[in-house]
Amino acid sequence: MKNVAVFGAGRIGRIHAGNLARLPGVSLKYVCDPFGDSAAQLAQQLGAQVATMDDALLDPSIDAVVIGSPTSTHSDLITRAAAAGKHIFCEKPVDLSVPRAVECGEKVRAAGVACMIGFQRRFDPTFNEVRRRIDAGEIGNPEMLVITSRDPGAPPVEYIKGSGGIFRDMLIHDFDVFRWILCGDGDEAAWLSATGSVLTDPAVGEAGDFDSTAVTIRTKQGRLCQINTTRRAAYGYDQRFEVLGSDGMLQAGNHAPSEVRQWDASGIRADKPEAFFLQRYAAAYRLEIEHFFECLQTGAAFRTTVHDGVKAQILADAAAESAASGQPVKL
Amino acid sequence: MKNVAVFGAGRIGRIHAGNLARLPGVSLKYVCDPFGDSAAQLAQQLGAQVATMDDALLDPSIDAVVIGSPTSTHSDLITRAAAAGKHIFCEKPVDLSVPRAVECGEKVRAAGVACMIGFQRRFDPTFNEVRRRIDAGEIGNPEMLVITSRDPGAPPVEYIKGSGGIFRDMLIHDFDVFRWILCGDGDEAAWLSATGSVLTDPAVGEAGDFDSTAVTIRTKQGRLCQINTTRRAAYGYDQRFEVLGSDGMLQAGNHAPSEVRQWDASGIRADKPEAFFLQRYAAAYRLEIEHFFECLQTGAAFRTTVHDGVKAQILADAAAESAASGQPVKL
Amino acid sequence: MKNVAVFGAGRIGRIHAGNLARLPGVSLKYVCDPFGDSAAQLAQQLGAQVATMDDALLDPSIDAVVIGSPTSTHSDLITRAAAAGKHIFCEKPVDLSVPRAVECGEKVRAAGVACMIGFQRRFDPTFNEVRRRIDAGEIGNPEMLVITSRDPGAPPVEYIKGSGGIFRDMLIHDFDVFRWILCGDGDEAAWLSATGSVLTDPAVGEAGDFDSTAVTIRTKQGRLCQINTTRRAAYGYDQRFEVLGSDGMLQAGNHAPSEVRQWDASGIRADKPEAFFLQRYAAAYRLEIEHFFECLQTGAAFRTTVHDGVKAQILADAAAESAASGQPVKL
Amino acid sequence: MKNVAVFGAGRIGRIHAGNLARLPGVSLKYVCDPFGDSAAQLAQQLGAQVATMDDALLDPSIDAVVIGSPTSTHSDLITRAAAAGKHIFCEKPVDLSVPRAVECGEKVRAAGVACMIGFQRRFDPTFNEVRRRIDAGEIGNPEMLVITSRDPGAPPVEYIKGSGGIFRDMLIHDFDVFRWILCGDGDEAAWLSATGSVLTDPAVGEAGDFDSTAVTIRTKQGRLCQINTTRRAAYGYDQRFEVLGSDGMLQAGNHAPSEVRQWDASGIRADKPEAFFLQRYAAAYRLEIEHFFECLQTGAAFRTTVHDGVKAQILADAAAESAASGQPVKL
Repeated sequence: MKNVAVFGAGRIGRIHAGNLARLPGVSLKYVCDPFGDSAAQLAQQLGAQVATMDDALLDPSIDAVVIGSPTSTHSDLITRAAAAGKHIFCEKPVDLSVPRAVECGEKVRAAGVACMIGFQRRFDPTFNEVRRRIDAGEIGNPEMLVITSRDPGAPPVEYIKGSGGIFRDMLIHDFDVFRWILCGDGDEAAWLSATGSVLTDPAVGEAGDFDSTAVTIRTKQGRLCQINTTRRAAYGYDQRFEVLGSDGMLQAGNHAPSEVRQWDASGIRADKPEAFFLQRYAAAYRLEIEHFFECLQTGAAFRTTVHDGVKAQILADAAAESAASGQPVKL
Repeated sequence: MKNVAVFGAGRIGRIHAGNLARLPGVSLKYVCDPFGDSAAQLAQQLGAQVATMDDALLDPSIDAVVIGSPTSTHSDLITRAAAAGKHIFCEKPVDLSVPRAVECGEKVRAAGVACMIGFQRRFDPTFNEVRRRIDAGEIGNPEMLVITSRDPGAPPVEYIKGSGGIFRDMLIHDFDVFRWILCGDGDEAAWLSATGSVLTDPAVGEAGDFDSTAVTIRTKQGRLCQINTTRRAAYGYDQRFEVLGSDGMLQAGNHAPSEVRQWDASGIRADKPEAFFLQRYAAAYRLEIEHFFECLQTGAAFRTTVHDGVKAQILADAAAESAASGQPVKL
Repeated sequence: MKNVAVFGAGRIGRIHAGNLARLPGVSLKYVCDPFGDSAAQLAQQLGAQVATMDDALLDPSIDAVVIGSPTSTHSDLITRAAAAGKHIFCEKPVDLSVPRAVECGEKVRAAGVACMIGFQRRFDPTFNEVRRRIDAGEIGNPEMLVITSRDPGAPPVEYIKGSGGIFRDMLIHDFDVFRWILCGDGDEAAWLSATGSVLTDPAVGEAGDFDSTAVTIRTKQGRLCQINTTRRAAYGYDQRFEVLGSDGMLQAGNHAPSEVRQWDASGIRADKPEAFFLQRYAAAYRLEIEHFFECLQTGAAFRTTVHDGVKAQILADAAAESAASGQPVKL
Repeated sequence: MKNVAVFGAGRIGRIHAGNLARLPGVSLKYVCDPFGDSAAQLAQQLGAQVATMDDALLDPSIDAVVIGSPTSTHSDLITRAAAAGKHIFCEKPVDLSVPRAVECGEKVRAAGVACMIGFQRRFDPTFNEVRRRIDAGEIGNPEMLVITSRDPGAPPVEYIKGSGGIFRDMLIHDFDVFRWILCGDGDEAAWLSATGSVLTDPAVGEAGDFDSTAVTIRTKQGRLCQINTTRRAAYGYDQRFEVLGSDGMLQAGNHAPSEVRQWDASGIRADKPEAFFLQRYAAAYRLEIEHFFECLQTGAAFRTTVHDGVKAQILADAAAESAASGQPVKL
């Protein structure tokens, strides 16, 4: 039995806590959150106790911590958990500063604990099936990737101000997908060009950010990737990509709440995609936590590590720099 | 906290046990199965105990039983559970004999316990969305229903011999869908014509059954329903229907394991539907058990009762009779 | 050069005239219609002359006639054209009376002229591709056929009164599709059951007809076919079928005016199907006329003959009888 | 009656000649091609005569010329036809040199003749429906455009050497689509970044060209466009785009030869897209020629002029420059 403490009882912490509480061989012991009410409510619902993070880290029966607290606390909590000898699952990103993220990775390595970073998209059944077919050679050599990544609406401007900007906050996932899907053989980004606009709300621009972006990456092997994003797609949450290979193409489509088609005078209508990330990636969140505990059990390597977090972060920094300067960045 | 005993530790019993064990406020106390090994394994996995059905029914702390044992035991177990004052969830069908099913319903009523029959399709998210839109008037008055119901392969002939025949074993679900979707306003079947063939395996015919059938039902209000079924669709499990209304049409499509499309020299390929009923109706099985306990909690009426079981059974009997005689049946 | 007279300058006559006027090696010489204005207008537009049918049949330079006049004139015109030694293309049906249609076929045979009946669906690119793949063995042995055949709206009741009823007027095409798709190896209908309702307009019932029907056919080899039709589908003209074989299934879908998808707050919307038969079967009408003249040129056999017209008619009569009596018909 | 000479009896000349020969009020008088055999064959097939271009231009009965000869001859032929007072339809591009194209436009204007440039995609029914809906306000303000433009296979390297490169030869159409779809209100490209790779055949690179490209354009109003192209998509000819607006999104999908779906053990398979541009844009080629003669008749303005040709050319030049230098270009 693995005993676990969850740090953070907000939206994402609740998802992870609920998922791990259902796993055989895993016991949720503590929920830790400075907002005691959230922690108490979640703990009660799942039969766990409330504790401070310090107390949880001091408890020798705790094997692992799952970090779902705000981004700004990640690297500090990882470092402390590593020092306490706990295994770590932490939501992306490791840190908005690449050097701090790198340092964090070194401390984890030195402590000899296992640390997984939560890029849940790598556990989505549709995205995984794409990866599996590429590995099986079904489209030959991957050559181009087009990612469409659109949120249904912008977060509050206050959030945007502290988010590190759209490239670090939103596209970080897309940069990881780029690495996972197009660079599976060790290829790497060599050249990146990004541009952005403010089209949905001037307040986004006043906060120093973009709401619409277009990124192009060329890899060392000459593969090409284009990413288009917006903070506001009127039709909802749009998470598609397509990868062209020498022998064919694979599309990863959206998931929908139902498979109903309505035929009437206005046309033939299918459902909009799942509303937002909690719905769209519900299975992925469940499977990534399963993966975390399975690897702890078997000693297998995690699919996504601090290294992946750092690599995605570097691309996000390059994109922010390119969009600001209007010039491409060499990597 | 509701304490529950599950009767039957086979394929469907395990599904129900696993689902109810995850519900807050519900405790799986006993697993009961004459095959002790299955019961022991399932009980251990879910932290329950093994008991005989008799002992479970004698335990006053047990609030409800969930019956997932073979069809031939259903009416007897329902009757005994009702006599013991337990609430009942029972897999369809109530009994292969309509009079016995009716009698069973009377005993349940007399005992004053609640009894739900498991027509899980009524809990499927896609099928429910169809029902919801009909209720919302989105297609006007429903007029025609076309059901495509195809299994990926025939069960063993030994199973077929004891199954009551394809109309009672397989189409029972489709007859319930017909009632639910096309007769929501109290309309009823008035005329039924069925025919069948043996096209996949002569052994099915030697066992006195069909493997391919075509059924037509006309309701009192003149609505029309056609159902086509086969025991063996080479491409898998096909569960679709479409309902035409005066203002439009609603299609309920299959669910697929992933939303990947592969484009290559042979065309553009989507996944086959989910493999079989356990995958296709995974959400439905979960939701129907939630519904059962929610209704026990709130006192609300079940969505599917012994009455529905009997009504579907009557249609199955009529179809068997029509296919045997070559003549339609008036209802 | 083949010289041609077109009989009938109405909707369907204009289609055929326009199509044949574009064929190399074919010259439209006469347009014949008792309504002189229509004939004159069509003749002028296509560089032809107006003539009476008698004069056209007397002109020895005329090789072939294309009959697109009202149904009630077909068998008489076929007979006269055959007697005049002209090759014949005639719109379905040959005659609403099966004996007269049979007699008509005998006269054609005796006269030694070639006569093709216009079941244009056999020339539709999508439907043909289904037939081609069945012939290529891609789904193994065909076992079941489900036809959805829905008009966008009922014709005037006056038309319905003279139409021979929905089975002879509308389903005649579906019966031909049944024979073409499911009986390609010489199999034949053995048993037919039909039922109908009046759901869209009581006036249809007062005219002695149905507007909604459900037909089931079982063939000698035990294959099953179900056909569902309505005169009024609120979403338009719906022309689909699917054929299940031992190794797979083929669906023939609708054609749409464009491949636009609109994603917005109400969902993801595709176009309705092509509006009605002139749009849906535009390519088919063109290809069937090409086929007619190609066969005249090469001496090859027509794909659809009086025999096919008679066979479809027999099924239509059986369906009308079955729907009236409530009993199946053996064939 | 408009009398017409077609210049060029190759692939595209034959398409235009065949289409215009079917138009009422239009007479194909001459086919002109230095390769006399092609001209003779086409002329005979369509009932026209063979002539030299000089003779055709000298014939006062000729109202218009349709130029489908090789790119290198376009500006010269336009200039000569304008000097001869003939109206002109010319295939894109006007000239591979922007200054020569501009000069050509000036001569046309000075001569007072009408000149249309053949960007046939603007006449495609699907693409037009997108434009129509944008104009109707169905997706609000257009903000982003993603174009997928992929050929089924590279042309011979000899062709590539004289083609002006992939941006001028292949993306010229995409640049016109960008202007048409995203800049309908007078907006214009402000910033362009392009990159390219050689992934399919080193010979392409040796010829100084790319086979795979990624282009990003930002407009003055901040709209974003991404274009991805390859010379070789293993699955065929892929011509899609999607335009995101403030209220929704419109996708223009591929057209397919049939609407057949095949369900079998390998999945559910739809047709590949139409094979190549002659099939995909068959309707568009027909409609653009109709438009040309309709405008000549009514005096209405053409939808695509030399100005549009020049504008697309400028973007192609900018893309070639950007891909060569690795730096964005300001426009």
